[in-house]
Formats: sequence, C-alpha cells, structure tokens
Amino acid sequence: MDIREKLKDSILFFDGAMGTMLQERGLKRGEVPETYNIIYPQIVKEIHQKYIEAGTDIITTNTFGANELKLKDTSYSVEEIIDAAVKNAKEVAGNKYVALDMGPIGQMMEPMGTLKFERAYDIFKRQVIAGTKAGCDLILIETISDLYEMKAAVLAAKENSNLPIFATMTFEEDGRTFTGTDPISMVVFLEGIGVDVLGMNCSLGPNESKHIVTKILDYASIPVMIQPNAGLPKIVDGNTVYDVTPEEFGTTIEELQSLGVRVFGGCCGTNDNFIREVVNRLKDKDSAKIENKEFTAVTSATKNVIIDEVVIIGERINPTGKKKFKEALRNKDIDYILKEAILQKEKGAHVLDVNVGLPEIDEISLLRDVTKEVQSIVDLPLQIDSTDPVAIEAAIRGYNGKAIINSVNGKESVMKDIFPIVKKYGACVVGLTLDEDGIPSKAEDRVKIAEKIIKRAKEYGIDKKHILIDCLVLTASAQQEEVLETIKAVKMVKEKFNVRTTLGVSNVSFGLPNRRLLNKTFLSMALASGLDAPIINPKDDDILETVYAYKVLANEDRDAKVYIDKFKHVKNVKQDVKTSDLTL
Amino acid sequence: MDIREKLKDSILFFDGAMGTMLQERGLKRGEVPETYNIIYPQIVKEIHQKYIEAGTDIITTNTFGANELKLKDTSYSVEEIIDAAVKNAKEVAGNKYVALDMGPIGQMMEPMGTLKFERAYDIFKRQVIAGTKAGCDLILIETISDLYEMKAAVLAAKENSNLPIFATMTFEEDGRTFTGTDPISMVVFLEGIGVDVLGMNCSLGPNESKHIVTKILDYASIPVMIQPNAGLPKIVDGNTVYDVTPEEFGTTIEELQSLGVRVFGGCCGTNDNFIREVVNRLKDKDSAKIENKEFTAVTSATKNVIIDEVVIIGERINPTGKKKFKEALRNKDIDYILKEAILQKEKGAHVLDVNVGLPEIDEISLLRDVTKEVQSIVDLPLQIDSTDPVAIEAAIRGYNGKAIINSVNGKESVMKDIFPIVKKYGACVVGLTLDEDGIPSKAEDRVKIAEKIIKRAKEYGIDKKHILIDCLVLTASAQQEEVLETIKAVKMVKEKFNVRTTLGVSNVSFGLPNRRLLNKTFLSMALASGLDAPIINPKDDDILETVYAYKVLANEDRDAKVYIDKFKHVKNVKQDVKTSDLTL
Ligand SMILES: [Zn+2]
Ligand SMILES: [Zn+2]
Ligand SMILES: [Zn+2]
Repeated sequence: MDIREKLKDSILFFDGAMGTMLQERGLKRGEVPETYNIIYPQIVKEIHQKYIEAGTDIITTNTFGANELKLKDTSYSVEEIIDAAVKNAKEVAGNKYVALDMGPIGQMMEPMGTLKFERAYDIFKRQVIAGTKAGCDLILIETISDLYEMKAAVLAAKENSNLPIFATMTFEEDGRTFTGTDPISMVVFLEGIGVDVLGMNCSLGPNESKHIVTKILDYASIPVMIQPNAGLPKIVDGNTVYDVTPEEFGTTIEELQSLGVRVFGGCCGTNDNFIREVVNRLKDKDSAKIENKEFTAVTSATKNVIIDEVVIIGERINPTGKKKFKEALRNKDIDYILKEAILQKEKGAHVLDVNVGLPEIDEISLLRDVTKEVQSIVDLPLQIDSTDPVAIEAAIRGYNGKAIINSVNGKESVMKDIFPIVKKYGACVVGLTLDEDGIPSKAEDRVKIAEKIIKRAKEYGIDKKHILIDCLVLTASAQQEEVLETIKAVKMVKEKFNVRTTLGVSNVSFGLPNRRLLNKTFLSMALASGLDAPIINPKDDDILETVYAYKVLANEDRDAKVYIDKFKHVKNVKQDVKTSDLTL
Repeated sequence: MDIREKLKDSILFFDGAMGTMLQERGLKRGEVPETYNIIYPQIVKEIHQKYIEAGTDIITTNTFGANELKLKDTSYSVEEIIDAAVKNAKEVAGNKYVALDMGPIGQMMEPMGTLKFERAYDIFKRQVIAGTKAGCDLILIETISDLYEMKAAVLAAKENSNLPIFATMTFEEDGRTFTGTDPISMVVFLEGIGVDVLGMNCSLGPNESKHIVTKILDYASIPVMIQPNAGLPKIVDGNTVYDVTPEEFGTTIEELQSLGVRVFGGCCGTNDNFIREVVNRLKDKDSAKIENKEFTAVTSATKNVIIDEVVIIGERINPTGKKKFKEALRNKDIDYILKEAILQKEKGAHVLDVNVGLPEIDEISLLRDVTKEVQSIVDLPLQIDSTDPVAIEAAIRGYNGKAIINSVNGKESVMKDIFPIVKKYGACVVGLTLDEDGIPSKAEDRVKIAEKIIKRAKEYGIDKKHILIDCLVLTASAQQEEVLETIKAVKMVKEKFNVRTTLGVSNVSFGLPNRRLLNKTFLSMALASGLDAPIINPKDDDILETVYAYKVLANEDRDAKVYIDKFKHVKNVKQDVKTSDLTL
C-alpha cells in the first residue's frame, strides 16, 4: 500500500534514533556513522530489526549525513553509502516502509553563510537520485533549521523523484529554529511547496515541543509528525544522556496524538523501548481528522503574513513612472532599490511588490537578483511582479519562503504558463480579472473571469486559498463609470468565492489633482467592500492613516490600542468657531 | 361614479375660463365676478351650459375669488356666494362633475408678506366647508404661485372635507412660480401631502407650458393636469386678447396628451370653442399609463433635493454636547441658530437637521419657531428632529415644503404616534433600527426592524420611497465589534429593500483621538456600502473633501468637474524624496 494512502486515515510510527543506537554498539566520536552501512551492515540491520520488533511502520535509513560534503573524507561515494543503507533497511523491512533519511548539509547557506542555493540543491539531488534508485519508499528531510535549505531539499526531492516527502524542522525552546523560522512560517512554506507530511524533530523533548506542535496543528491542513528527543540532553560522566523515560515520553506523545498529531517517532536519545511504548499506547487509537485550514498566507524565512486583516503590499519597487528608479535599474544600483524596501518596511508595509520590468534590461537575472538582495535585507514576504514567466520562475526558485506571484489573468495562455510555477514552488498568485478580450467594464463579467481563474487553478491542484483576485482599478479620469464597478466586483468576488482580494489603489486618481484624497477615499471604500491586500504606497501618510483608522473600525486594532498610541496627541479640532463671528 | 375611480383610466376635461366669458357677457372692470352667482345666475348657468355642450366632464364653480378678503366689500358672505355658485353649477350639471374653484387669497404670505399660515388656512377652510356643504364633487385649487399658500389650501381641504383635490400652480416662462417654486418641488410637495391630481394652469399658453409640463410628468406618480391660457396676452384697443386659436390650442394639447397629461381644460382667454376643440381631438384617445416614480425627495418652497446622489444632512443645529448652542436656546437667541444654518449651507449642506431638544425649554413652540425662522433665511429643505410627536407636528404643520421627520423607530407606540403625521403632512421619515429591546448588536436583527418599519409604514399608506433607514452608528471606543455591523446592515437594507439610508456619522469616533480621521474613513466605507444621506458636520473640511472625492469615484461628479475646480491647485505631493538620503 502506498504510504500516501495509509496517511489518509492511519496513525504511522517512525523508528527512533539511529545515532544513539550506533553509539551503544561501538560508534566512536569522529567516526562517520553512515560508513557503518558498508563496514558493519549487521549492526545497522539489527537496529532496524529492533525498531521493527517495537512496532514501527517505517524504518529510516542510516543516511542522515550521507551528503557529498560530510562524506568527502571517507572512501565512499554518496551513491555507495545510500545504496548500501537502503539495501540494509530493505533486507529486514518486510512489509515496513523504508525512508531515505536526509539531514542538513552542515554548512550555512547564503546570505548568512556561503553555501549557494543551487549548490545545496545539487547536493540533495544526488542523495535523492541514489535513494530513489535503491528503492526506498519515501524521503524524510529532517532536523533542518534553515528554511532555505529545506526548500533546496524539497525541490531536489520533487524534481528528481516521485516519492512521498516527509519534512521536519528543528526548533529551539523559544519556538523558532536556529535561523529564525517560526512554526507558522514553516507550515505555510511546506504546505505550499507540497510535502506530504510536515512537523518537527530533535532539539527538544516531547514536553518542550508541545507549544510548538500546537501552533503547527492550528495551521496545518496535512498530516503533522513529531520526532522529539528523549527529553533534554545532560552530560553525565562525559556522556550525553537524556532525561525522559520511555513511559514519560509515551505519556506526552499520547497527549500530542489527542491534539491531532498523526505520525510519531523519536530522535536523539530514543531507542526501541521508546518506540514500543508509543506504539502500544497509540496503536488502537483513531487518527485525528485533518481539517482544511482556510487561511491565506505568505512568508519569508522568518516572517509570515496571514491575510485575515488588512495587508499592505508596498508598491514602490516598481519603475513605472519613476525616472530615478529606472535610472537605478539601468545602472544596476541595487542599493537604491534596497532603500525603497527598507523605507516601506519602516512605514508599515507587510509585503513588498518587486517589479523591475524595463524594456532595455535583462529582467530575468535582475528580478532574480533583486528578489534575493531584498530578502537579504528585509524580512518581509515578497510579491514577484512580472509579465515574463521565465523571470518569475527564476526569481521564485531562489526565493526563501512562500511568495506571491503577480500575476496570472484569465488568458488561457497565461494561466498555462503561470499556474505550473505557482503549484511547483508553492506560491500565492494574484489573478487579474482580464482576459483575451481585455478588461470587462461590468463587474459581473470581471467576476466571471475570476471564476474561470479559480476553476482553472483547481485543475492545476491550486486551492483558491492561494489566490488573490485583483478586480482592477481603472482611472476615474478616463473611466469614471467603471470605478464603482471595481468596488462592486470586489464585493461580488468576496461573497461568491470567499477568496482574498487585492487592488492597485493609486491608479484610481491618475490624471487628477489632489490624488491622495481620491486614493484614501477609494481605499476606505474598497476595504469596506472586501479588499484584503491593497497595493499602496506606504510612504503616503494619508493612505497609511486610512489603514490605521480602518483597522479600528473593522475591529482589527482591538481597543484601538495602536490608533490611540499613534494619534493620542492629535486633538479633535473643532471647526465651528466662526459661528459667532458671522453677522446676519 | 366617484371621480377618483374615473381618474384611474380616463382622460378628463375641465371647462375653460369663467372670467373671459363673464366679460363678454357684461362683467365690468371693478365688479366682483363671484357676485354674478347671485345677481345674474342665468349668465353663470349659461356659461356652464356652453362648456357642457362643448363636451367638458367637469364644470368649475364661479368662486375663484370667493374668499372672505376679496368679498369683504360686497354685501355677500363667502357662504352665500359659494352656496349660490354650487347651486348654479349643479342645476345644469346633469351627470357632469362640479368642481369648487379656489384661487389665491390675494395677499402675500409670511415671511415675504404678512398673511400668516394659519390665517390663510382659516380663509380656505371657510370656502371648503361651504363648498362641501353645498354639494360640489371635488375641489380645484388653482393659479397658486406660493407653495406655502398651496399648503394652507390643501390642508384646509384635507381637514375639512373628504373631496378629491385637484391642485395646480401657475408658472412663469422661466419655469418657476412668482415666488420661486419649480415644477419638481411642486410635484414632491403635492404628492407628499396627498392631492389627487396636480399640474399647472394660467400664465402661459400651451406652447410655453410644454417644458414645464414635461418636468412635471417626469417626476409625478399621480395624474397630471393642465389648464393653459389661450396663448400669451396682448393689449389690443385697450382690451386684453390672447394670441392662440382654438385649433392651435388643440394641436399643442394633443401633443401634451401624448406625453402623459391626463386632465385638460383652459384658463384665461379660452372659451367653449377651445374646450370643444380639445374634447374632439382627445375624446377617443387612451389615457397614458402612470408609472410610479421611484425617487426619494424632499423640498423647501424653492429647492428640492432628490436623494439619488450623496445628500449631506447638516448636523449642527443640535444642542447635544454644545455649550454655546444650549445657551443660545435658553436665551431664545435665534440668530445664533440661523448663523449655523447659513454656515452649513455655505459649506455645502443639502438638508439641515433641526433639533432644539433641551429638557428645560418649551420644545414645542421653539421647534416650530426655529423651523420657521430657518426657512425664512435659508432655502434648504429641513429635517425636523425631535422625540416629541407634538413638537414634530407643530413644526411640520408650519413647514413650507416636504420635510424629513427624524425619527420613527421600531417601537409600536412610536410608529403609532409618528406615521399619521408623516402621512398627513407628506414627509419623508427616518426609521431608526431600534425597538423596545434597544439596538440589536447584529446587522441581521437591525434589518428585521427596518423591515417592520417599512411594513408598518405601508399600513399607514406611506410608500417606502419616503423612508430613510438609519442603521445606527455606535462608538468604536465602546462597541468596536458593532461598527462593521452598521456597515453590513446598511448594505443589507439597501439590497433587500432598496430604500434610502442615513447615518449620523460622527458618533463613531466619540471618545477617541483624531476623530476626523475616523469619521472620514467611516464615511467612505458607509458610502461605498449604500449610505445615501450622511448626517455630518459640513464645516469639517475632511468630511466635506471625502464627499467631494466620493462623488468623483461614484461617477456623481461627472468628469470630476467640481473636484478639479475645487482642488486644481492641490499638488500631487510626492513623498518618496527620502529614498536617496537613506544610508544602507
Ligand atoms: Zn535528534
Ligand atoms: Zn388664467
Ligand atoms: Zn383660470
């Protein structure tokens, strides 16, 4: 039975630690554990056997560090080690599943370290190909603390095998990974990119994991797994020992199962006794139902944005109508662009749109580079904005997190180009309500295009929660009758499909004086009608103040705390002083 | 057959002039024509006879000036004259209807003249009682140029008889009556107060009447009548003659019939030849269908406000929270209040709310007096705002035009008190969505109260087009969750009942800093959701500018003409100057 089938309504058990067990069987500090696959296959097989006897459903190959960097001082290739490891597992597996284990590469990635994304990808790719060829049943990517590294590993797995992917990251007690990823960002990213199971492992014991697992469960719509350590490590007589007994371990795991976790196993310090305890306690339980969580979210590596309140998408990284910006692009003056990014963040933008489209530049490389540079300096999620699918894919491939792609529209050819990218990399996507016949003037017809986009996306496996519909703002100066059609379309799209909506607000005032007054008035109207994510200039105080006010009125800024803090010095000016001066 | 029945699907013919015919039969300048009813009844009867032979359905008593002021130098009382006149008509009428003719009193009313409203009412009342007693079939109030005088006459007719009321005013060539009433204001007022037929007579020939009749037809939902002169008067050999032949007269009348006029007759200069011509041309025509015109409107004597665009209701004539205003009320300092009225008009208010409720004052007389005084100095329609039905009736009785009553609500006792006043005087009414149980927190429940108000109003004969629903603005500081419920309720009320809506906007920001920001943001949101008539402070520039912007966005200010004119000097300030200053 394919494990994906089994996942639908079963609790699944992984095994426990490999390293701890190898140490008990003679592995010395400095030895490369993966070499045991070849030197001492019996030991590895005995460990697998023990876990099978304890009741595990899945045994994990002894390949945690089987990457070309960690193996380079051994006399074995990645392929030799992995081939042997999978063979060892399969020889004892019987009807159990064999998981190809992939741990972190062991080097810091860019921009903090020097390991490039595509290099990391290639390293993982070699492991994936070897493991797949050797016949493992699934890939377990685990103990990852860098979301970017996780992306390289998942992409390598997706692009070089069809195996199920189980992905777990390792969190510190403060609830973030070492490089700062929080559980929600992880869920948003991993679900987006399309793994089969996600969760956490290592670092913490089951008790310390609870508050993190709870968060993961609150947001995940796919099965959640946990492989905690046997408590926290202590050094006793120069040896690392863990402070939780199998029974304590089992008690907490049982609790986590009742909260909704579906896949269990152990990490450092656990052995077959821990697994037996877990299996015995849980084997007769019904697996928790998984609800589809209806929220829409994007994320960088460390900051997620859930679009259930007003989300400000900063519009300023865009050369349209900006002489200086164009000049900066032509001169590859990335600093100029980065300053725009920083200023927008300081002003309160939640997401930054990144558009570098100019006819005379190489958009493909520039969009990719600017995206990367902006991510290195601000932690906001980005919206990749281009009409060129190649440029979009180049940028999104190197993007760390889950981005928004701006945009697809109702043209069949565009949907055919863009939706596979959205699906593969796991992005949100803006759907513009225009098609081969242009922008319909009537709201009803824009809603029809929205419907087509949502339907076609579904055919690509993209749920509507990843779509933001843009009903398109036209200029009041040239198409005055259509301004309210946009507002009406937003209302209808919201009511009919319950999808998130976005609008490029400032377009409305083009060609008229006192643009800011029109922009802020239109923004209030659109927000009241269901606009979720306005694309605006966060450096326009009027616009920003409108958002602050809206958040009070919409009960988003509870008790007006932010508002009062921001405006407590603004007096409620009375303007009726002139009454008594007027002579009748 | 009751003439009201006949009106439903028939064209009806009045007779032509009485005065012209009497002059031809010897009436001298200086003689009182109405005395002929007693001195020369044969002459009067002969004239009626001629019109009956010409084919008229209705003959009009010779009582145009039969009021106590015009008759005071004769030896006859109003009752004697009217009794004789009706007798004369009835003696020859056969199966024809007899209309009691009432022309203008002949004195200027307050505030321009000295004739008080209740005095005018009493004068007309005497005529109505006499005519009704004598057995006439309907009352024709005609050749009125002052809307206030018309109101006195119609009220006198309504309160002292059950006879059908036909009411026509007389317009100058510029399209207004001598005292400034335009055709739409007339329609709004007369339909509101509940006459059976309305229209125009005298002053102009049929050709010059056309543009005015067309306007009347565009707005009227009840039968329209016209009694033009025989063209325009010329003095030939010291005599007044008219320049239109019966045939020319008939040609134009035929055209007016095809446009929708249903009741025809002639005024000065016409005789039985004119009426014969008209009858012959029209007698086989089908009467035009009358469509219910779905607009909502209020009016003063000279300025109507149709609520199909944003209508600003000025909130400033209200003592709540205003120390100086309260002081002015206590001192009966009407000037202070009038200044508020003028300032609000200057700032762009379309309607003024008038509220003088203070526990320690005599609200009944003060509300009546202030309403009258405000009407004498600004030409805007007013909204009479009180919780005391007696005060409301006192004010609305003396109001010149069609006002808004603020307010009724879902309490049965309040509806029982207020709706009869609304119906009798012909007002619009604000319906607050609260009832015996207070203000519901959920939109759905407020909508239910709106439904009850609309239903109950219908039972009193009040169409929903005369109702403005107020879904009630609560303060964001105390009831933050309910701010959006109000917006939602406005949307629902609008969609479900297609009624006009109003809201007291500034309440939303009570207790918070920077109130104007919250007010204008809320206003934009509410306008986008279907708010028609915000009750606001027109002296708050932010609020006013928001309305200007909204009108551009909602395509009410076509081509943004007003907006551009208002803001052409306001530069589109760029705020991104700091980008280059930032050091990375
Ligand atoms: Zn571990
Ligand atoms: Zn006349
Ligand atoms: Zn006349």
